[in-house]
Amino acid sequence: MYSFDIIIKNGTILTMDSKCSVLKRGLVCIEGDTISHICSDDENTFEADKIINAKGGLILPGLVNAHTHAAMSLFRGLADDLPLMEWLNNYIFPAESRMDADFVFTGTLLACAEMIMSGTTTFCDMYLFEDEVAKAARLTGMRCLVGEVLYDFLSPNYGPIEKGLAYTEELIKKWQDDPLVSIAVEPHATYTCSPDLLQAANKLALEYNVPLIIHVAETKSEISEIRKKYNKRPFEHLESLGVLGPHFIADHCVHIDESEIKRMVEHGVKAVDNPESNMKLASGISPVSELIASGVTVGLGTDGCASNNNLDLFTEMDTAAKLHKIETMDPTVLDAVTVLKMATIEGAKALGLEDITGSIEVGKKADIIIVDTNKPHLTPMYNPYSHIVYAARGNDVSHSIINGQLVMEDRKLLIVDVDEIMSRARNKSKQFQDIARFK
Amino acid sequence: MYSFDIIIKNGTILTMDSKCSVLKRGLVCIEGDTISHICSDDENTFEADKIINAKGGLILPGLVNAHTHAAMSLFRGLADDLPLMEWLNNYIFPAESRMDADFVFTGTLLACAEMIMSGTTTFCDMYLFEDEVAKAARLTGMRCLVGEVLYDFLSPNYGPIEKGLAYTEELIKKWQDDPLVSIAVEPHATYTCSPDLLQAANKLALEYNVPLIIHVAETKSEISEIRKKYNKRPFEHLESLGVLGPHFIADHCVHIDESEIKRMVEHGVKAVDNPESNMKLASGISPVSELIASGVTVGLGTDGCASNNNLDLFTEMDTAAKLHKIETMDPTVLDAVTVLKMATIEGAKALGLEDITGSIEVGKKADIIIVDTNKPHLTPMYNPYSHIVYAARGNDVSHSIINGQLVMEDRKLLIVDVDEIMSRARNKSKQFQDIARFK
Repeated sequence: MYSFDIIIKNGTILTMDSKCSVLKRGLVCIEGDTISHICSDDENTFEADKIINAKGGLILPGLVNAHTHAAMSLFRGLADDLPLMEWLNNYIFPAESRMDADFVFTGTLLACAEMIMSGTTTFCDMYLFEDEVAKAARLTGMRCLVGEVLYDFLSPNYGPIEKGLAYTEELIKKWQDDPLVSIAVEPHATYTCSPDLLQAANKLALEYNVPLIIHVAETKSEISEIRKKYNKRPFEHLESLGVLGPHFIADHCVHIDESEIKRMVEHGVKAVDNPESNMKLASGISPVSELIASGVTVGLGTDGCASNNNLDLFTEMDTAAKLHKIETMDPTVLDAVTVLKMATIEGAKALGLEDITGSIEVGKKADIIIVDTNKPHLTPMYNPYSHIVYAARGNDVSHSIINGQLVMEDRKLLIVDVDEIMSRARNKSKQFQDIARFK
Repeated sequence: MYSFDIIIKNGTILTMDSKCSVLKRGLVCIEGDTISHICSDDENTFEADKIINAKGGLILPGLVNAHTHAAMSLFRGLADDLPLMEWLNNYIFPAESRMDADFVFTGTLLACAEMIMSGTTTFCDMYLFEDEVAKAARLTGMRCLVGEVLYDFLSPNYGPIEKGLAYTEELIKKWQDDPLVSIAVEPHATYTCSPDLLQAANKLALEYNVPLIIHVAETKSEISEIRKKYNKRPFEHLESLGVLGPHFIADHCVHIDESEIKRMVEHGVKAVDNPESNMKLASGISPVSELIASGVTVGLGTDGCASNNNLDLFTEMDTAAKLHKIETMDPTVLDAVTVLKMATIEGAKALGLEDITGSIEVGKKADIIIVDTNKPHLTPMYNPYSHIVYAARGNDVSHSIINGQLVMEDRKLLIVDVDEIMSRARNKSKQFQDIARFK
């Protein structure tokens, strides 16, 4: 009798591979960090060191949060319901000016605890002190693609931009053989990065064959600013700099026109939708259904906690499905399967990690979650996709396996102490109480 | 030393009364069905039969789901992502044609279990076989305002409309002294009810001093239909029939213009917003910020599970806050406090139950929930309102008290067997598997 490290049994598997198979009474077998066998539970003649009973729930690939600023979990609820510039200038920037490496480490630990507990197994991060983000993610067992934010002004981490590029190169070298951490080059945006910086960042990304990640067309004011400076729309500007390509990941893509979508398709640019943050800041709505129809790979992200205010990709899926329906006044767009793809395999594709994660397939790394459906709000069950997107919530996830390691069992984190993380986060938050809007 | 029936201690109280006080380390004392004392925990020299430790969490009034079709929980995920008429004609209507009293009883039990477990203590229902809804709600300990849906065609419950009015009158008489159940008169909509029916329904409502509840201006096609039939907009039509008044509750109010808002204000009409359902069916967006600014009382509802697909008012609040921001492109509208009011005291006002529920005030009935904030996604805490609206989820509610009765403790339902309810719901759903879209 063959023996595996982990077997997950007695659940319905949503593979999210190219066939999007639904395997009732499915069995997933894991050896080391890899999915090694998928079959029907009825054929189960295997043994394993660890057998996980999904108890009739849903077994699916771990979710991919394709754009966030994890450490901003420490700014959750610091200030809400404000005009963008007042929010940034009076709350977020003053708070960020007090930020240090320990803040980022602590905030990322908190974010990773939340993400694991809500079904995310991979996240893509852009912030400061990203080496701390990688360390914290590593400690919690999460998979991540991270990059230091680069811009023209002085950074509290690296100082002048030349050092930012050097810091990024060091990150790439330091983490290149890590099984969980990947590094990207991450200039902030077209309005905060000079053409020289954007081109230098792109050169670095191409040299090391890593993604180039940037916020694009998030707000209307960005469009006017780029128009004023360069007499171009953001994607026109980026194309003229020669930085677009399949390695280019554009976060937000709210205010983009037909010609820009065409440019994105031509260059194989990837996009990440952040519907809740775009709604909360009243930035606008990304034309996601058009992007997908045009063939653009679109992932899904929560953005940071200061503008969401959580990292729950289940509600983000729900919001994405509904927002793009109301935007187009068409209830058929972004159906449940399409949206679950955005949060799994398409997100993995967007980040260039589709050979590793995003679906349950033999040979891929074992990034798998179980959703407990034995609850009133998930009863009865006609359609598992519908339940995942429209009815389930992050805290319905009972188990999480990342890279073959069981990191959550029956909602208990196994490799970090969640109480210690929360206590550390509360202590850290004290230094921002005087900035907080609610007194 | 004075002794109460229940004391809730060691939490932050959000009163949601006219002062919207936030009482840190607050204490709520309950005698029988009533809130009898509110003070600081430090002054606690009281005893009680039952002492509930909120463990530093948030203590708030139970949420008011101001518009739903509870029994449709059995159609959750039956069919999604479809054009409205295809969804109705090919899935919902065929399924409803197989509906009977036991279906409604079972579906409502399931919905009540879900609602209690996600912090709702009062709901307003419109469906068929409403006596069963009242019975099921009563069994689970929930407060409700229910009414049999009335329309021009034959009903599977009462047959011709005369019998529908008689059935409603019987409901009013049967439940008039009940501490939890109230009855309303509920014609379906202007396009399904003749002027005669609307006026007869209004007469009955006025005679017994109960609310008149109706869907108004939910879809664009409704507007054209009423224009075609009566050459009026829906609220013009309703005004001309003389049925508007402070007892009139209008669900949805999506496609309404300035003149209609003026009419609503003049007549003291109440409104209920159902943002998630309106998004999922691509119906449109209600001008809620305008309604509130004009002085209209606006409650919040989930609508039925077939178009949502859950009854979680926490995510409904989150969606409402974000949707109306993006609709107006103004991040300051529907701030967290305003939205929590919609789901508590304003919802109670909309239903005419503001003397009974919707806030934590001495003399009101004890409808109270506790939100467990000791979780990564609710850490740190700068602002309790922000956490409730933007970060918390229904399953963060740990305790629920309705009318002085503890109905949920540490997420366990105390007076009904949730496993039995789910099993009953699953059995009932089998007869609809052949209709379900997903095979």
